[in-house]
Amino acid sequence: MSTIGVDVGGTKVSVAVLEAGELSEPLVEPTEKANADVLVDQLARCIEQARGPGSEAVGVGIPAAVEFATGAAKSGVNVPLAGVPLRHVLTERLGLPVFVDNDANVAALAEAHEGGRLVTEHLVMFTVGTGVGGGLVLGGRLYRGVTGAGAEMGHILIGLDLSDGAPPPADRFPQPGSLEALASGTALDGLARAAAQGNPEGALGRALAASGKVTGVDVVRAAKDGDEEAVDLLRILGERLGVGIASAINLFDPEEVVVGGGVATAGDLLLEPARSAAAGYVLTGVGERTVIRLARHGVEAGVYGAALLAAQEGATTEVTS
Amino acid sequence: MSTIGVDVGGTKVSVAVLEAGELSEPLVEPTEKANADVLVDQLARCIEQARGPGSEAVGVGIPAAVEFATGAAKSGVNVPLAGVPLRHVLTERLGLPVFVDNDANVAALAEAHEGGRLVTEHLVMFTVGTGVGGGLVLGGRLYRGVTGAGAEMGHILIGLDLSDGAPPPADRFPQPGSLEALASGTALDGLARAAAQGNPEGALGRALAASGKVTGVDVVRAAKDGDEEAVDLLRILGERLGVGIASAINLFDPEEVVVGGGVATAGDLLLEPARSAAAGYVLTGVGERTVIRLARHGVEAGVYGAALLAAQEGATTEVTS
Repeated sequence: MSTIGVDVGGTKVSVAVLEAGELSEPLVEPTEKANADVLVDQLARCIEQARGPGSEAVGVGIPAAVEFATGAAKSGVNVPLAGVPLRHVLTERLGLPVFVDNDANVAALAEAHEGGRLVTEHLVMFTVGTGVGGGLVLGGRLYRGVTGAGAEMGHILIGLDLSDGAPPPADRFPQPGSLEALASGTALDGLARAAAQGNPEGALGRALAASGKVTGVDVVRAAKDGDEEAVDLLRILGERLGVGIASAINLFDPEEVVVGGGVATAGDLLLEPARSAAAGYVLTGVGERTVIRLARHGVEAGVYGAALLAAQEGATTEVTS
Repeated sequence: MSTIGVDVGGTKVSVAVLEAGELSEPLVEPTEKANADVLVDQLARCIEQARGPGSEAVGVGIPAAVEFATGAAKSGVNVPLAGVPLRHVLTERLGLPVFVDNDANVAALAEAHEGGRLVTEHLVMFTVGTGVGGGLVLGGRLYRGVTGAGAEMGHILIGLDLSDGAPPPADRFPQPGSLEALASGTALDGLARAAAQGNPEGALGRALAASGKVTGVDVVRAAKDGDEEAVDLLRILGERLGVGIASAINLFDPEEVVVGGGVATAGDLLLEPARSAAAGYVLTGVGERTVIRLARHGVEAGVYGAALLAAQEGATTEVTS
């Protein structure tokens, strides 16, 4: 089966063809963000350009929560697609089955495959970037729940003080105590600021003095240079992530837990503390076959996973238009 | 399809036939617990007794974690079946396909059905008894993970102090901070003792003075009688459960979250605080169709769910012997 994968990012659109397990060189353009019409036109044009005679279905990954049945984004923070039934619109334009899902789901699907073939039946993915996202591949397929809004890995609660019941929730998400509040790049930014202010002579303190700000990127850089304070901040973040991973293993008993996203560039400085914390909190007898690893795919995860989505859904779903 | 359901409890064995959505009057005997051989003999005899000419498969629920492929219990705390490949042994004895799963999974399957028919595609069950167990019905089928050890709902972490990373795990499970440590019947026993000692004049304090002990059962009774202190303890337990439910909704976006087990006899005194806490921690846009409700099935959940397990697995699996 030959399918087309489309990765709609906040800055770039990438389109490529997956055939016999091989992904073609992607066609890449800056994202047209003026409005929905312009962006839909761009997507249709790029897909037509990439399309071969054997193309059977199109998969599209977008940076938003998606109503899977219609392909409509539930918000338009990063791309102007909120409420646009992208699946129906593109199906009609192209005369091909189209499937739309959020980019974290699509990346999880990519991680479960090698050479276009499913290699991991049950996989939990955590994407640690500005926030914490993720995806669930269960029984070889993306799990989305009844409305398509599931797999919100960043919004599991791990660190609440529950001595007197539940604290009143905050006005906005992420909730304090959630994985996203505690283990995201934004949380690492906060740890970096506190450390820099508390220790002006340290590497992070000097970075703050030099540029007026300090972020998670500085932490990862300093930690890779061997700065102990920065290594310790990644330990804190990694252990928090590990607690979230332990909950996921106790629920899903998966073959793999995959950690991706910008903060994962810290590599084992993040992952070793995560593995170690998870090991202590996974119930005896569970997770005996679970491997916790870094994401295998880089920038091409989006377009590859989108093409896999098309192959998976196209093989089992009737055209909807 | 006509199937036989077997519920192996710590005190009773129940066997019944499910045909055309109707469960027969169960055959009930005290569990033979001397050793595995005696219990296996009892099960085989009871199944032969219940078996009709049209019986096509047998489902067995046991109070232990199970390796699904072999039907072997991973522990023998409640029944002497640890390590016995019950699925294979009974398949050989009976000449029928046999499927064995843990009782919480089987109860979840029962809750997803009415009159033998699947009515809920995605369902998360929490069984709040001495511990917290549960089950996951995803896409209409029990989800077990790669080794069959998944769906350990009680071992998700919700209440850890993660300010300096993850606290060192305790020597044994349940881990402090887990749903089971915080929201089980055992946790309620602890809340009851503390309240009774702190307030000897209250209903719980008087119960302690009268009998030398006070438990969750006293709390539920006093709360139903309107005792405010007891109502507040159920609020605490319910809100903690609600935080676990919120995590589950953010992950699974299910149609239903079902709460069963002994503590659920508290009814809305437990469930209303749970619903209220969950509502605050479920991400906007998720769980829009999720209903949180009490379990519908009582004591017959085990035998009914086991018969449904046989119908579900028997329809899609070859006989293994």
